[in-house]
Amino acid sequence: MSQQKPPVSFIGLGAMGFGMATHLVKEGYPVTGFDVYGPTLERFAQAGGKPATTPSEAVADKDYCVCMVATAQQAQSVLLDSENAAIQTLPRGAVVLLCSTVPCSYVQALEKDLAARGRPDVLLVDCPVSGGAGRAAAGTLSIMAGASDDAALEKGKDLLQAMSDPAKLYIVQGGIGAGSNMKMCHQVLAANQILSAGEALGFAAHLGLDLNRAAEGILGSDGWSWMFENRLPRILDANHQPIASATTIILKDTSIITHEARAAGFATPMTTAAEQVYFASLGRGYGPDDDAGLIRMYTEGVGRVGPVQGAAQTEHDKLALVVDLLRGVHLCSAAETLAFAHFVGLDLDQVFELCINAAGGSRMLSTVGPEIIRRLRGEGGAGRAATEGSSSGGESLSSIAARLSAAVDEAQRLKVPVFLGSSALNLIRQALRRSAGKEGSESSLQSVVGVWT
Amino acid sequence: MSQQKPPVSFIGLGAMGFGMATHLVKEGYPVTGFDVYGPTLERFAQAGGKPATTPSEAVADKDYCVCMVATAQQAQSVLLDSENAAIQTLPRGAVVLLCSTVPCSYVQALEKDLAARGRPDVLLVDCPVSGGAGRAAAGTLSIMAGASDDAALEKGKDLLQAMSDPAKLYIVQGGIGAGSNMKMCHQVLAANQILSAGEALGFAAHLGLDLNRAAEGILGSDGWSWMFENRLPRILDANHQPIASATTIILKDTSIITHEARAAGFATPMTTAAEQVYFASLGRGYGPDDDAGLIRMYTEGVGRVGPVQGAAQTEHDKLALVVDLLRGVHLCSAAETLAFAHFVGLDLDQVFELCINAAGGSRMLSTVGPEIIRRLRGEGGAGRAATEGSSSGGESLSSIAARLSAAVDEAQRLKVPVFLGSSALNLIRQALRRSAGKEGSESSLQSVVGVWT
Repeated sequence: MSQQKPPVSFIGLGAMGFGMATHLVKEGYPVTGFDVYGPTLERFAQAGGKPATTPSEAVADKDYCVCMVATAQQAQSVLLDSENAAIQTLPRGAVVLLCSTVPCSYVQALEKDLAARGRPDVLLVDCPVSGGAGRAAAGTLSIMAGASDDAALEKGKDLLQAMSDPAKLYIVQGGIGAGSNMKMCHQVLAANQILSAGEALGFAAHLGLDLNRAAEGILGSDGWSWMFENRLPRILDANHQPIASATTIILKDTSIITHEARAAGFATPMTTAAEQVYFASLGRGYGPDDDAGLIRMYTEGVGRVGPVQGAAQTEHDKLALVVDLLRGVHLCSAAETLAFAHFVGLDLDQVFELCINAAGGSRMLSTVGPEIIRRLRGEGGAGRAATEGSSSGGESLSSIAARLSAAVDEAQRLKVPVFLGSSALNLIRQALRRSAGKEGSESSLQSVVGVWT
Repeated sequence: MSQQKPPVSFIGLGAMGFGMATHLVKEGYPVTGFDVYGPTLERFAQAGGKPATTPSEAVADKDYCVCMVATAQQAQSVLLDSENAAIQTLPRGAVVLLCSTVPCSYVQALEKDLAARGRPDVLLVDCPVSGGAGRAAAGTLSIMAGASDDAALEKGKDLLQAMSDPAKLYIVQGGIGAGSNMKMCHQVLAANQILSAGEALGFAAHLGLDLNRAAEGILGSDGWSWMFENRLPRILDANHQPIASATTIILKDTSIITHEARAAGFATPMTTAAEQVYFASLGRGYGPDDDAGLIRMYTEGVGRVGPVQGAAQTEHDKLALVVDLLRGVHLCSAAETLAFAHFVGLDLDQVFELCINAAGGSRMLSTVGPEIIRRLRGEGGAGRAATEGSSSGGESLSSIAARLSAAVDEAQRLKVPVFLGSSALNLIRQALRRSAGKEGSESSLQSVVGVWT
């Protein structure tokens, strides 16, 4: 017989929050939920939850609060600033699990704000999640949790375990905000690889490839990413339905990355390039649509940009160009993620472990990530991969540059934008030029990360 | 009394060519013109020219041929490959002035091709022009001319002088193709600064500024560029009329830059970012429109990307953000131009002299260009500008980064893309990180060029 579960409040019953909250109900927790959207509260009641009409009503008398609103602004409002904010009734010593994706700087400020308002007793855990609505409802999310003291993590542990896959609950060292930093670095991969899926298949469309067959080829290639596989059905759907994750959602996370990077003086050229396309897509009215619809930023010119004449003739050669585009983008996406994680002081082994098992996964990350990490740590000889062989098969950076260059050349012939592919090529060229004066073995794939450090 | 002028053939009577050819007519040259577009030939006859129906008919019995078609493909066709190509009747020892903007590699191949077809006697000059249709018709173009031997330049000199401003005829050392390299490097500025004009005023529109007043402020600021001033009336015109230079024209030149750079392994991150926006604009159907209409790539989201809330409140503060965006973009644009010119072996003093007096001019280039050149040559102490004062007023790279960062922050709040501004900021951040370990004085503005070298 299972132990009696304590009452829990749950603030924010959106696509992710609803699944998480109703999963807790199924696990036997008495869950009181709040959301600003009335119909959602009714659905929540039908699913066995108890609806509350304000945050303060929801959290009253409960030692556990999960907050899964969309933004830092919303978190600040429901927890502290609104008329019926949670802080008014939150019991002393309660734990608040802030699962929203927010800037590290925000959760650190939130902890100070709680203390300044006389509530240093609140046990704050920043524990953003990854995995999508399906895994939220199944209680098998990836969760990355940080806190200022172990008591908060200890108290929140049961709930965190209830919402996550046993192998995918990461306690992130570094105090409050460390979980958010981990999520932020993971989202570098997400931001780039959601768009690279659209860029690759948009390029394939201009090449005249059958998209279903091209996608099949990509899934079995080094161009694979979790995002590509996940978004594929909705990319191929003519209306990009159903809406599983709106473009505005990944844009919000992307802006956290670039804003935090700017504030710290760190360059994120790949994510920045992706973000501009996201902004441009808002201008086209695509914001509320599923992010799989971003392929339209590439395909709207099919058949109207001519006269064009590509060089690749066979389906095999064309698909190879698409895969080479993805390989170059994902290499740079992996390097940007790991370099940024290193910059903010995260444990790179944990970052890698998290990312390859979550939405940020890609074949390139799995292959080259460990060597990039060694290089960031200053371990191992220069160009080890190229000289001793490695999981990346000894391919050189010059080789991947040449193949990516051929893809960008072809995109130029077809007059199709490849925002990420062309950015990646310039970054790889920069890396090659920086190492040109050094020993030849410097041209291993992982040496690209030198551009970020 | 003027000397009798020799007969000249003129192939390609487009917006530029028509003005150039009719100016030669006014100067007393007997000019036989060819163009594929019949009505243009009629206009040319009315202007005192003699129309020809094929290239071979045009060039027959004339020691001088000016070729001003749009692309290398067209040049190859009219000179060599078409049914009635010029080569069939071109007199022995004739000079061909190829004024089209084409890749250096093309004119070098053309010279070899002429020899291979038994015509090593043809005196080939590659002499692309800059200055727009107005200066073409006035005979005051900037012209940059290269050739394999001095006889070609000597024979073509009178015609080159007739078409150019006396102070703006540049004989470019380096043999055949050197003129094209010079034009290519100049077009780095053109490609970036045509788009930066639209990016700046698009940003201004999202900021809620009156565009006429904002433009006035920019014209008197360090954000000034020749392109901004030249495109301004057509940017402000609701229909971006009249069509003075189609988007496809600058895209053609942009693609020459990035293609030649890729082939040489040189990174051109600014021009590459601009090119992707040009390609995206083709997809929107803007290709045939004047390039001033590129502002639509930024303004189409005005009022529909919300909810947004900027930080800048006053007109003064908002305009400062726009100017800071332009300063950052034009600094990186200047660095990319000069670094690429250095890479292809051009005389940097001549490049600078040409660019500040042609369509590539910008206040930032005028101010920082000489220090960038000293740095590229390895002259002068590191950070001379910052420590000893200079024409850039001792402003540091960190300072320009902070101001550009504030502009990009604001663009993020307003959810408007700033493709060039965000690229420039990442490049400046890269430069700052590279020099972080070195002496503090390294943070002079010109040190940004280190990213390209």
